[in-house]
Amino acid sequence: MIQESSPAYRRLIDRYGDVDAIDASISLFNWDRQVLMPPGGADARGKHVAILARMRHEKITSDSFQKLVEEAARDVTPGSEEAAAIRVLRRELRTQTKLPGELVARKAQVGSDAYDTWRRAKPANDFKAMLPYLEQLFDINRETAERLGYQDHIYDPLIDLFEEGASYADAKKLFDTIKGPIVQLLKDIQERGREVDDSMLYGDWDKPKLRAFAERAAGQVGFDFSCGRLDVANNAFCTHLAHHDVRMTTRPSDHIKGIVSSSLHEMGHGLYEQNSPKRFEGTPLPGGISLAVHESQSRLWENIVGRSRGFWKRFLPDLQATFTELSGLDAEAMYRAINKVVPTFIRVGADEVSYNLHILIRFELECEILTGQTALKDLPEAWNSKYADYLGITPPDDTNGCIQDVHWTRGMVGYFPTYTMGNLISYQMWQCLSSEVGDLDSRFEAGDFSGALNWLKAQVYDQAKLFTPRELVTRVTGRPMEPTDFISILSVKYRDIYGL
Amino acid sequence: MIQESSPAYRRLIDRYGDVDAIDASISLFNWDRQVLMPPGGADARGKHVAILARMRHEKITSDSFQKLVEEAARDVTPGSEEAAAIRVLRRELRTQTKLPGELVARKAQVGSDAYDTWRRAKPANDFKAMLPYLEQLFDINRETAERLGYQDHIYDPLIDLFEEGASYADAKKLFDTIKGPIVQLLKDIQERGREVDDSMLYGDWDKPKLRAFAERAAGQVGFDFSCGRLDVANNAFCTHLAHHDVRMTTRPSDHIKGIVSSSLHEMGHGLYEQNSPKRFEGTPLPGGISLAVHESQSRLWENIVGRSRGFWKRFLPDLQATFTELSGLDAEAMYRAINKVVPTFIRVGADEVSYNLHILIRFELECEILTGQTALKDLPEAWNSKYADYLGITPPDDTNGCIQDVHWTRGMVGYFPTYTMGNLISYQMWQCLSSEVGDLDSRFEAGDFSGALNWLKAQVYDQAKLFTPRELVTRVTGRPMEPTDFISILSVKYRDIYGL
Repeated sequence: MIQESSPAYRRLIDRYGDVDAIDASISLFNWDRQVLMPPGGADARGKHVAILARMRHEKITSDSFQKLVEEAARDVTPGSEEAAAIRVLRRELRTQTKLPGELVARKAQVGSDAYDTWRRAKPANDFKAMLPYLEQLFDINRETAERLGYQDHIYDPLIDLFEEGASYADAKKLFDTIKGPIVQLLKDIQERGREVDDSMLYGDWDKPKLRAFAERAAGQVGFDFSCGRLDVANNAFCTHLAHHDVRMTTRPSDHIKGIVSSSLHEMGHGLYEQNSPKRFEGTPLPGGISLAVHESQSRLWENIVGRSRGFWKRFLPDLQATFTELSGLDAEAMYRAINKVVPTFIRVGADEVSYNLHILIRFELECEILTGQTALKDLPEAWNSKYADYLGITPPDDTNGCIQDVHWTRGMVGYFPTYTMGNLISYQMWQCLSSEVGDLDSRFEAGDFSGALNWLKAQVYDQAKLFTPRELVTRVTGRPMEPTDFISILSVKYRDIYGL
Repeated sequence: MIQESSPAYRRLIDRYGDVDAIDASISLFNWDRQVLMPPGGADARGKHVAILARMRHEKITSDSFQKLVEEAARDVTPGSEEAAAIRVLRRELRTQTKLPGELVARKAQVGSDAYDTWRRAKPANDFKAMLPYLEQLFDINRETAERLGYQDHIYDPLIDLFEEGASYADAKKLFDTIKGPIVQLLKDIQERGREVDDSMLYGDWDKPKLRAFAERAAGQVGFDFSCGRLDVANNAFCTHLAHHDVRMTTRPSDHIKGIVSSSLHEMGHGLYEQNSPKRFEGTPLPGGISLAVHESQSRLWENIVGRSRGFWKRFLPDLQATFTELSGLDAEAMYRAINKVVPTFIRVGADEVSYNLHILIRFELECEILTGQTALKDLPEAWNSKYADYLGITPPDDTNGCIQDVHWTRGMVGYFPTYTMGNLISYQMWQCLSSEVGDLDSRFEAGDFSGALNWLKAQVYDQAKLFTPRELVTRVTGRPMEPTDFISILSVKYRDIYGL
């Protein structure tokens, strides 16, 4: 708990402990379901998650809890850490008090149950099996948006749940700004770029050895495995049961790019959580302030660090010791291979240049579905048509198309744009980080990730939820999120790789 | 839910769902802590478990819940399944309403936290590290007993928590009855029995292969791995998150006897849970009615089935295919080896004959500690002295002595006698089972475990918590628990093995 806090604040935090414990239970239920629950547990699991979600909602919206928040609010010093905790709780209360417990429980249950169907339906190319769940989950999201209220667009209250202050108009403007430069860069690479060969990375690699390599790399970069785990699941994700119990997963892939990038991505989320100040534990303050800021960390470690020359000068020898087939490869060729740009069907396997076009497609589709412009039953065709338009490729099936992601299956609508926002913020922060710390490529080559990590700890992780996302980005980089650094650094990096 | 139930009963069961969900959360928190939680999670885990235990206590002792129980009680038909559920809840209310939530939460937290210390202290022979936890946990048990109240002995309300209706006097009388015949049988074996060789079972066996063998055996006997798991933990246990999500563990041992017997033991618990009628899910009725009846199932499958001639005629070829070093062994030699009687320091490695002397020692010691006759700080000496008296051996250290078991570390005082009661009930049921089903050894040899399993399903597992333990044993065997069958069958079996 925060030191020297007021009695009213201490009473509030004491009561908040119940919410914190329920949150940890729900997180463990969901982690367990995705990582190792036997199939027979599914029925009860969905019910239990729904009950806990309803209990959490009851606790936080109860008159007595709201009264505690207001009593504490009168007591705390403006600008203090306590005041930040009150701000976080008030924001949550504004949302939760507008939603009935039944809706919260239903979303938790359907989102939990849909996962098992998705796990079977995805490899079986069975969109029809997913359709009833998607119908329910989009209905739940529509109802949520109506209850939360909005002025301009039904998307506004939904994206705000993931990214405080964001709106449909923001996301639209952002994509409008970056689409042109990205499409141009992609076109230049495809038409005039030199050949980049990544064929050596495809092979029937030993999966446990590959995962062990990813785990070693994450450990050397700075993830503390005494306060976390890396397991295998059908989707890569990161969750925390406490700030010193951070659980990451990686997919059961046998592809070097896939394993390394998904492990470093989740490690980026994990570092943000693991490095929350200990004194915030049990309060509403620890952890990431928003999904975009969270994604800025996962994408920073995955892409800017994990696809850098320095990183591969450091780790290629380890990879080559693991897989002697790669012994002829030099670090520059590895650097190019890991950054090869080629439009693909699968978002999580996408290169940095085309990645945001995958997000744009999802953003447009979820808006169209919410407003009724596209019917869910027509999703496969709508999806494939956008892939043809934006990326020039048509998915051969829904496995490689509209049921590849887990997000909608878990009821998360309004989430996708935060990936692109995260990309922008990651480069914006990187610009500051690299000018302040300096010499990062050589440091990485020497296995020294502490300069970058310590800068991020001080600037971002230590701040936890003390500031709004907009405030935090402005404090760290001197200005709110905007696309300049992203576009310019990306352009320089890929024009270099492709000899443009 | 049970069909055609009364409205008041349905309201009660609906509300009971919260308790059921919290129980599942606590079980998963504890399973996770013992199987795979990273060390950093320990602090928060203890707090979260304590909060959930307190929330559960609040829910079940609330006036509104008690009122629902009494309303439903007026509505249900005597002798119905609903009436049994009311009986189970009333028994729980009688206990829980006498205990303050703070005590319940403290026991949950100390019991959870002590586990991590125990895991380090046991291999390090560090009794001193355990002492403060044991002091707290015995104090908590003393306070629990005082609050629950008793007439004759402080042990009475504690053993009753695990075994409805049991008392110190019952347990004392039971041990007094069986001690003589057991000691005599042990003496005869040691003095006049032929040599039984089990040296071939000791070796540096490949642990994953050994566990895979145990898992195959459990699966062939009847454990449904689509509704359960077998993992490795420092202590072997079985828990359930739902009746189709039953989690067993086995120790990281490399000893064939240890792995096979602990896996079959936990499988016995698991079969009892897994086979609870689906219609009871979400009510207070599913699962084992008491620890003694639960132990009767684990001990029946571990010892009576798992150490039978038929079982090893069936499974020795599989074991030999796994470990070719055993190829010279015949089933009769394996049968004798797996049943070799020799006093050991470790309870969980004990043979059937000396096993109950290990329990007697623990029963006497926990009573002496509760009453102050033995101080906890003197436990190592008291422990070793009893091992010398009853088993003729003196543990070389506390690793092999008083800190070998997890029970007291988890705050479970009054639990141990249920193992011996379970042994008695297992043989009493076996007597009926074998006369009604018949030809069991040949069936096992043919890989047919369904006759035994179906009998137990109908007689025991289907009954779940419908009857008190005494009623259930009487219904199944025609009489309450008593030691005749145990003593006579054990004597016949071991006099045969040892040529007496």
